Amino acid sequence: MPLRIALAQIDTCVGDIDGNTRAVLEHTRRAAESGARLVAFPEMTVTGYPIEDLALRASFRRGAERGLAALAADLVTAGLGDITVVLGMVGTVGPASAQDDSAPDRPTNQAVVLREGQIIARYDKRHLPNYGVFDEFRIFAPGDQPCVVEVDGHRIGLVICEDIWRDGPVEALTGQGVELLLVLNGSPFEEGKGHQRAELAARRSAQLGAPVAYVNMVGGQDDLVFDGGSFILASESPDLDDPVPVLLARAPQFVEHQLIWDLPDGEAPLVAGAIAAPLHPDEEVYRALVTGLAGYVRKNGFRKVALGMSGGIDSALVAAIAADAIGGENVTGVSMPSRWSSDHSKDDAADLAQRIGADYRVQPIKPMVDAFEAAMPLDGVAAENLQARVRGMILMAISNAEGHLVLATGNKTELAVGYSTIYGDAVGGYAPLKDVDKSRVWALSRWRNNHAVDSGAIPPIPENSITKPPSAELRPGQVDQDSLPPYDLLDRVLDAYVEHAEGRAELLERGFDPEVVDRVLSLVDRAEWKRRQYPLGPKVTALAFGRDRRLPITSRWREPIDTPTTSTEL
Amino acid sequence: MPLRIALAQIDTCVGDIDGNTRAVLEHTRRAAESGARLVAFPEMTVTGYPIEDLALRASFRRGAERGLAALAADLVTAGLGDITVVLGMVGTVGPASAQDDSAPDRPTNQAVVLREGQIIARYDKRHLPNYGVFDEFRIFAPGDQPCVVEVDGHRIGLVICEDIWRDGPVEALTGQGVELLLVLNGSPFEEGKGHQRAELAARRSAQLGAPVAYVNMVGGQDDLVFDGGSFILASESPDLDDPVPVLLARAPQFVEHQLIWDLPDGEAPLVAGAIAAPLHPDEEVYRALVTGLAGYVRKNGFRKVALGMSGGIDSALVAAIAADAIGGENVTGVSMPSRWSSDHSKDDAADLAQRIGADYRVQPIKPMVDAFEAAMPLDGVAAENLQARVRGMILMAISNAEGHLVLATGNKTELAVGYSTIYGDAVGGYAPLKDVDKSRVWALSRWRNNHAVDSGAIPPIPENSITKPPSAELRPGQVDQDSLPPYDLLDRVLDAYVEHAEGRAELLERGFDPEVVDRVLSLVDRAEWKRRQYPLGPKVTALAFGRDRRLPITSRWREPIDTPTTSTEL
Repeated sequence: MPLRIALAQIDTCVGDIDGNTRAVLEHTRRAAESGARLVAFPEMTVTGYPIEDLALRASFRRGAERGLAALAADLVTAGLGDITVVLGMVGTVGPASAQDDSAPDRPTNQAVVLREGQIIARYDKRHLPNYGVFDEFRIFAPGDQPCVVEVDGHRIGLVICEDIWRDGPVEALTGQGVELLLVLNGSPFEEGKGHQRAELAARRSAQLGAPVAYVNMVGGQDDLVFDGGSFILASESPDLDDPVPVLLARAPQFVEHQLIWDLPDGEAPLVAGAIAAPLHPDEEVYRALVTGLAGYVRKNGFRKVALGMSGGIDSALVAAIAADAIGGENVTGVSMPSRWSSDHSKDDAADLAQRIGADYRVQPIKPMVDAFEAAMPLDGVAAENLQARVRGMILMAISNAEGHLVLATGNKTELAVGYSTIYGDAVGGYAPLKDVDKSRVWALSRWRNNHAVDSGAIPPIPENSITKPPSAELRPGQVDQDSLPPYDLLDRVLDAYVEHAEGRAELLERGFDPEVVDRVLSLVDRAEWKRRQYPLGPKVTALAFGRDRRLPITSRWREPIDTPTTSTEL
Repeated sequence: MPLRIALAQIDTCVGDIDGNTRAVLEHTRRAAESGARLVAFPEMTVTGYPIEDLALRASFRRGAERGLAALAADLVTAGLGDITVVLGMVGTVGPASAQDDSAPDRPTNQAVVLREGQIIARYDKRHLPNYGVFDEFRIFAPGDQPCVVEVDGHRIGLVICEDIWRDGPVEALTGQGVELLLVLNGSPFEEGKGHQRAELAARRSAQLGAPVAYVNMVGGQDDLVFDGGSFILASESPDLDDPVPVLLARAPQFVEHQLIWDLPDGEAPLVAGAIAAPLHPDEEVYRALVTGLAGYVRKNGFRKVALGMSGGIDSALVAAIAADAIGGENVTGVSMPSRWSSDHSKDDAADLAQRIGADYRVQPIKPMVDAFEAAMPLDGVAAENLQARVRGMILMAISNAEGHLVLATGNKTELAVGYSTIYGDAVGGYAPLKDVDKSRVWALSRWRNNHAVDSGAIPPIPENSITKPPSAELRPGQVDQDSLPPYDLLDRVLDAYVEHAEGRAELLERGFDPEVVDRVLSLVDRAEWKRRQYPLGPKVTALAFGRDRRLPITSRWREPIDTPTTSTEL
């Protein structure tokens, strides 16, 4: 008989053991109603993911074990005992060596198989990612055993996330009659990653001679966004280096979903199920930002957000994202004009607020700025920063009084070159555009407005905010390009220096002007201390600022000005 | 002939390849003048330590190789070619597996031996720490080969730091006629670590049957302080589990120093050299704080610091540390009284400034607070935070106008329970007391004053600041104990929950009151987002907030209230 499986792409919350296990129970019920005999959940379902140093807390691991035991019993009580449930969990193993029995127990990143109220198998993740945003070698001990479970006569091989990105674990399953490779994932979104996952799955399918079922979590967790997009895929060719991928089913991204698919018997042909259409790259990033913010707000117990609305493009895009995430009525936009604010700025801010249905307030900063300037003589940067900091204080006062989450509106380009005021426009608990460079801010704004037009809705972002030259309006007639290279050039230099860690020599070889390169590199290096105190924001590129890029603040390293670009140097 | 060796305990700076290699040249000259034939430097001498993701930058590694080559040539030019120089470096190895030749080259944490202008040996660190503050598995590939070099007929075994904390690397050197184990270290200070290092060295000496020469770096680097304290030690017993340590030489802590010692020929007895006296535990921590701040100021190009002087004990201790680090004349103390500030607060602040010779300014906050309150109705926490934030703005304005590094004066206890105002008293580039709990703030203040009395100097901290009940003075008659448990109790609960990661069950077993426990745990868990935006500060305990303790902000985990304390649960 074919085996009906359900991939339950759910949005877990770190530490919410009760909530997560309740979701497993509900989704197992739904899966059973769909006739599924096997339901699979994402990596570390019970605990949420990533749990970071919570893994090292014995009381936390005990709590997870209690939650798992209760879930196993609840499934039986609910009449779901005969369904095979595969879910993620934090495990515990003893010390690695007998010589070292004083060492504490170590956590593992575990998959658990439940049936009839029993744990019928446990599998410990073998490859622990320890690069980029991942620190799994810090908190987990690796497993060393493969795992195959039998469900209604079908043999299912089980691995976790990184196990398919490296050689070894899948190899260990070959020759064991595995009919399906089930992969539990907590794979954070970044642009273009869907293709990588599919290519990888095709290679593993070719290697094993069986389809791959990839279940991924969905939702926002601190600086990570999980996009779901669970899928089932096989390779028509057994050639590892040249697999022929056949997509058999795919869940939509950024929503909870159950993907149902039938694994056929023996030599019967594979039949495709539901395949969600892929998203446009701009839409994909936009939805990732919405998902990240919505998750942060909800999981941290907020209901409302507040942000400064300057009339500029950054705050307009943040407001649109916030309205999409939690509803415009839960967004408070505060216009905080100074003596240098243009009329069009105030008009654009008001227009934006009206378009998205936000609570809109105007709070001129002149009286507070005057009070500071009367007490202390300030000019230049000190005077400019003062204005930004008065605005930050106003937002924080609203947050303290009314419970809003304050959103910082800065973008990745500004963060890279330090074009922001610490304790000023950088205040907030969450920064939606932290990993979105200025060029993409415009692209996403245009996409969002076009999307509204296409669906007959009002475009949220005033056209004027998109088209006018960007300005911080901290002095008369100021525009960003007075002190920064043009954004399209700047973003290309930053992409090479920050995301690709290229040196000065490589940058010059790309044809960038040496003066621009030196200026940008110096700005980036000097802004590290500000970045360290910046709020969290969702990672959407291959390299986000934050734990993805760990550099010392105290560093005298400067890319050498005289690097020769001879081949021996490179 | 005996071999005279010099352990050059120097203060390197991350990324300052020119400066670091210049220091090696100078110290080699000094060592040669002392008759030394071998001079050893700390871990990663050329690059500074820890370099974090700079290791992943190919241009950085090329720069280090150029610096090393230039140094080798300079040593010969300076007539020092015949001295054997052992120093730390970033190395590069090819991809780990032949299957994976698309993988990039990987950095190593390397020791290099220079003589006569040549690199006569390279050793790659085998054990890469990846816990606490360390992320070496992220950036380095481990070595797998032992290293023995011959110097004037003596056989020297070479390892790096973590290699002696784990079994394996020293074992690999047994039976190779090694007469001295040389260990290059970048071992961050924490209280009590000196004893651990000595015990470990004794064990390795017993294992190898040879003395251990331990050279450690000194100085501040971001949130780490290196205390030096290089030493030479042997075990009189060959029993690994019961070594009999004999200290042969020890350098002082927290200063650059060359420790000279003679390794005897063959069976000749070991003779002790200079042994610096150990420091009192309070003095050790105090000097760590001074070293950390002095390093941060100097290496980041500052000359002056500014801080709010409230008259309270935290700001008084920070001011004393700053005066000891960079001279009182480079310290600007700003008294920022509010309507609730008591006269004694202002007097104590002025008294403190006079004692340490600080630049003292008074800037009442009333006009700015009034301006905000006239514009926005604020009460409760919002009004309290407003006062703290006006103070933060004043300090940042001074910093912007005059170039001071602003010091945050909060302590570890406040940081733990969130008893601080983000963007208020938490502003700054560096927080000297970040890892010093309130109980220790008092202890260090008393130690510093007693130390002054003992040496006939003026105690820096006004007695009144030490003895009066602590108060944030944000409303009339407020004292900290209105909203927090007594500090001595609070610090004990925090020690168990934060430093030892104990759960609620363990805390109750220690006899703490359940209400206090629940209150404290809830405060700690909810303050994570504030801690994430807090400035750097020097780690001095076994577990500091920051990269030493990585917890999600978004987490619904709460220690269960009803944890039974039966043995099956624990």
